[in-house]
Amino acid sequence: MDRYLPPASTRPVTIHKAMRYSLFAGGKRLRPILCLAAAEACGGSETTAMPLACAVECIHTYSLIHDDLPCMDDDDFRRGKPTSHKVFGEGIAVLAGDALLTTAFELVSRARSCSRYSHADLLKEMARASGSLFLIAGQVADLEGEEKKTSHGQLRYIHERKTSALLTCSIRLGAMSANASPGSLRALTRFGYNLGMAFQVIDDILDATKTSRELGKTAGKDAKAGKATYPSILGMERAEEEADRYTQNARRALKPFGARADRLHQLADYLLNRQN
Amino acid sequence: MDRYLPPASTRPVTIHKAMRYSLFAGGKRLRPILCLAAAEACGGSETTAMPLACAVECIHTYSLIHDDLPCMDDDDFRRGKPTSHKVFGEGIAVLAGDALLTTAFELVSRARSCSRYSHADLLKEMARASGSLFLIAGQVADLEGEEKKTSHGQLRYIHERKTSALLTCSIRLGAMSANASPGSLRALTRFGYNLGMAFQVIDDILDATKTSRELGKTAGKDAKAGKATYPSILGMERAEEEADRYTQNARRALKPFGARADRLHQLADYLLNRQN
Repeated sequence: MDRYLPPASTRPVTIHKAMRYSLFAGGKRLRPILCLAAAEACGGSETTAMPLACAVECIHTYSLIHDDLPCMDDDDFRRGKPTSHKVFGEGIAVLAGDALLTTAFELVSRARSCSRYSHADLLKEMARASGSLFLIAGQVADLEGEEKKTSHGQLRYIHERKTSALLTCSIRLGAMSANASPGSLRALTRFGYNLGMAFQVIDDILDATKTSRELGKTAGKDAKAGKATYPSILGMERAEEEADRYTQNARRALKPFGARADRLHQLADYLLNRQN
Repeated sequence: MDRYLPPASTRPVTIHKAMRYSLFAGGKRLRPILCLAAAEACGGSETTAMPLACAVECIHTYSLIHDDLPCMDDDDFRRGKPTSHKVFGEGIAVLAGDALLTTAFELVSRARSCSRYSHADLLKEMARASGSLFLIAGQVADLEGEEKKTSHGQLRYIHERKTSALLTCSIRLGAMSANASPGSLRALTRFGYNLGMAFQVIDDILDATKTSRELGKTAGKDAKAGKATYPSILGMERAEEEADRYTQNARRALKPFGARADRLHQLADYLLNRQN
């Protein structure tokens, strides 16, 4: 990631500092790791998948910077550190998000195409997952959801778009970089969808049960903002059952890959058992 | 453009309405027209260049929406209509910009590649011009310039990045869609740079001499914000000479194309003589 970005000393210094501040703020790197692990599961190499792995992390980081803005979720802390607009001001935070989104697409141009998937395919995949029908749709529905009562169906709609779409895209891009067969791509898409949903339900559960210190971000925010969460709509027990169900489905989707999917299994375990 | 975007009725309705509101707000369509005219000058077709022409207009529109935000230039009017955040609120305006930026890259995936230029080349071209070294660098320098005294060199730096880079990119993408020779691409790059600079100097002159009604946007804003402009740094007469010089250079770059560059010449004339 460091090598793919302009050095912090590149003019204009502010924007490159701001891009790096958020990108190297200690995120879990879940999306790039999934991308690399999916490439591995399809017999590909980390090197080939790397530009795409970094691209999805840029997309994720941009979406966090913009989500944290005062006009959106208005968050002061992220991963235990002040959010971008707290450090650099709102104008630069908007632009740092824009720049990371643009960098993500530049990284797609640096990836290698292969016999089954062209650059146009990789590009379409990423633009779709981050566009107005998925990632951004989720954020819009989330923003609008603060004003009215949210049903279980609507909450699923938000999470499918806000979380699952980009996780699935990360996995699919990794698989595509490894020239995955259509069958493998379908199985990994199912894995990604279910893993993403499990991840989000668990996020909701942690937000309701942990302290800000344990999470490294403001805890209990959703409840305070009157936002619907899995525990608030289904109750804690059913929310935990949902998380389990999605995780089982995700594991089942990996069967055809055998031992090549070991890292993907480990990631699923880690996500189900995480404490922050 | 209408066919490339999701219908305004697509869920979430707010974001698709906001994207269309700004995209169909009566802009001059300078960048897409330049893209198509450059394709023509290189013997290509409008149909092949069209996705790229629409892509650069999406980039331009996204940059205007974000530039107009209260945390940036804080503009209430654009093209005689209330700006996006005035109509949809700041959160949706940020997301509408994000969505248009993403759409631009999706449109690159819909373009056709040709023997000289792959999708990766088209993508790299657009990501570079809109990224942290060009379009966004210009906006950052512009933001920071409000706080200190700006020299002629710094002003040129801002305009090269904020205006010239995307105009040049529009022209280059059109030429690339027409499989332009390296020589033609170089000549059109020179044309784009000089046209972009002329365009921006004239913009500064109009801002200083016209009323808000004539411009369709708040006039005299730059002076009020203490922002440096060509007339404020060089004086009106020398600013007009600069505009003329850039326009002459632009025209000279078109010589090798003969009559095939007629539309590009007309555009240069239109830009030099425009009143808003």
